[in-house]
Amino acid sequence: MAGCSEFQLIERYLARLGAIRDDVLLGPGDDAAITQPGDRPLLMALDTLVEGVHFPADLPAYWVGYRALAVNLSDIAAMGGEPCWALLGLTLPAPDEPWVAEFADGLGCLARDSGVALIGGDVTRGPLTVSLQITGRAAGVALRRDGAHPGDVVWVSGRPGEAAAGLAVWQQDGDRELAHWRGLQQAFIAPRPRVALGQALAGVASAAIDLSDGLAADAGHIAERSGVALHLDPACCRPSARLQRWAGEAGARRLQLGGGDDYELCFTAPRGAGGAVRAAARRARTPVRCIGEVRQGEGVWWGDERILEAAAGYRHFAD
Amino acid sequence: MAGCSEFQLIERYLARLGAIRDDVLLGPGDDAAITQPGDRPLLMALDTLVEGVHFPADLPAYWVGYRALAVNLSDIAAMGGEPCWALLGLTLPAPDEPWVAEFADGLGCLARDSGVALIGGDVTRGPLTVSLQITGRAAGVALRRDGAHPGDVVWVSGRPGEAAAGLAVWQQDGDRELAHWRGLQQAFIAPRPRVALGQALAGVASAAIDLSDGLAADAGHIAERSGVALHLDPACCRPSARLQRWAGEAGARRLQLGGGDDYELCFTAPRGAGGAVRAAARRARTPVRCIGEVRQGEGVWWGDERILEAAAGYRHFAD
Repeated sequence: MAGCSEFQLIERYLARLGAIRDDVLLGPGDDAAITQPGDRPLLMALDTLVEGVHFPADLPAYWVGYRALAVNLSDIAAMGGEPCWALLGLTLPAPDEPWVAEFADGLGCLARDSGVALIGGDVTRGPLTVSLQITGRAAGVALRRDGAHPGDVVWVSGRPGEAAAGLAVWQQDGDRELAHWRGLQQAFIAPRPRVALGQALAGVASAAIDLSDGLAADAGHIAERSGVALHLDPACCRPSARLQRWAGEAGARRLQLGGGDDYELCFTAPRGAGGAVRAAARRARTPVRCIGEVRQGEGVWWGDERILEAAAGYRHFAD
Repeated sequence: MAGCSEFQLIERYLARLGAIRDDVLLGPGDDAAITQPGDRPLLMALDTLVEGVHFPADLPAYWVGYRALAVNLSDIAAMGGEPCWALLGLTLPAPDEPWVAEFADGLGCLARDSGVALIGGDVTRGPLTVSLQITGRAAGVALRRDGAHPGDVVWVSGRPGEAAAGLAVWQQDGDRELAHWRGLQQAFIAPRPRVALGQALAGVASAAIDLSDGLAADAGHIAERSGVALHLDPACCRPSARLQRWAGEAGARRLQLGGGDDYELCFTAPRGAGGAVRAAARRARTPVRCIGEVRQGEGVWWGDERILEAAAGYRHFAD
């Protein structure tokens, strides 16, 4: 819609998105938003999504908006915090009003559901790119990547690998309505950030990360930052039945270790904390599984075999 | 440099940028940064720069990095706050290491000079785009856009219009070393965010905005949000001598009202606060001029003539 200015787009669709919060003293419309922080430390993250890199060009605008917030909520989840405020940098090739309306709907619904207020940001012209910055409040003890100790147990939520399969289904499958693979597609299109689980694990888990680049790569970040080795037990890492049906046994394993975009949590906890982990997962209504253990050493291991970093995980600037 | 991953770029150039601050409990490298907010309200803003839209493709990387922070500092300045922490979303077509090193240098120098710590963010592949989110601490009373009252005086810092002229010089002039116009170019390339002035004006000014879209358009935001008219006095709005030399008298007027990217402050203050404004400007070592007055009504006026919104200021999605 030519002639619709960025001010109009913001005023019509983006100025009142998400939850109403008492700690937002001034929302969108000034040079900066004003928030009241409270006593607890703040968690701050920023993630950018680029069309054709982080999501396919034909992904509906609703899910682009949803995703921009979801990947950031997932960072707050991985720190065990409570998400509060978001700022949006939206770059658009043209002022496509229906697209922005749908985008705002997806972002706004998830923001309301998560208690997040959109407090400001920027709309500019350029290749479709969405940057979203999120601020949350830390729990008493934030879940960091560097707290895993030898003897801890490795856990994961949900079914890693399904999102990567879902993206492949979306991209390759002409018949997108195919009911058979809808569950896999859903895992890619609408990842559920594990905010409730992260909060329940604060004070229980020793380290945590969210799965964006793939289980092996992200577990590798815990290993590296904690100065330990993470040994995954193949017997405990069964891919889901539908993932096996779609990708075959070997393909399912590859996706499970190397597929990105799941936004599940991988975390470690002391061996004696198994009951507390299961109780936290029940409170958060989130399935978790024990998939291995932390040992002295380095890297991520699959049974007896070390997973080489170069083979694992998505990289933006690969050879 | 193919094969240099985003993790390496972050680790080598972006992980330790800017000031060292006690209130950063955990910097880059985890899912989110952790900061200690303190008692005062927070100011939060985010601005995106797109190559070819917000800066010319041949602008040196140093000044792209500088600019990404400068435009955000300017938002904190316009609220009268103290800038503290920044998160960076950097989207790059390729992992060009020398470019990133130079970019980080420009961003880092300005960050250190302004007391800002770069606490995290994201590096991704895609068309060159820089999103930066900044958080500051508010002064006792934040400078908002909606506080101007009839009877107040309108002030501006620096020489609006010079940055737009400087961009034109940069784009049109084959001989960029031409000493004659270096001052104008400098106004575009290296805008000086008026952080010290903004802080000095907290409690003195009644409303403030930074000039990014042009004096007329940005003064219009104060008028609209405050429900008043801003009358600019042509006799008080002399363009600088060098701007007149470059653009001629009429051209200089046009640039002064409609040219963007100055990142000066336009603010209002009660008529009796002139001494306090001048004292604040002296403390901040920033030149300010009185350019008009606030009256009942609406819009921005140039003498007897109302400046039409459609004619004023940069719009991303113009007809």
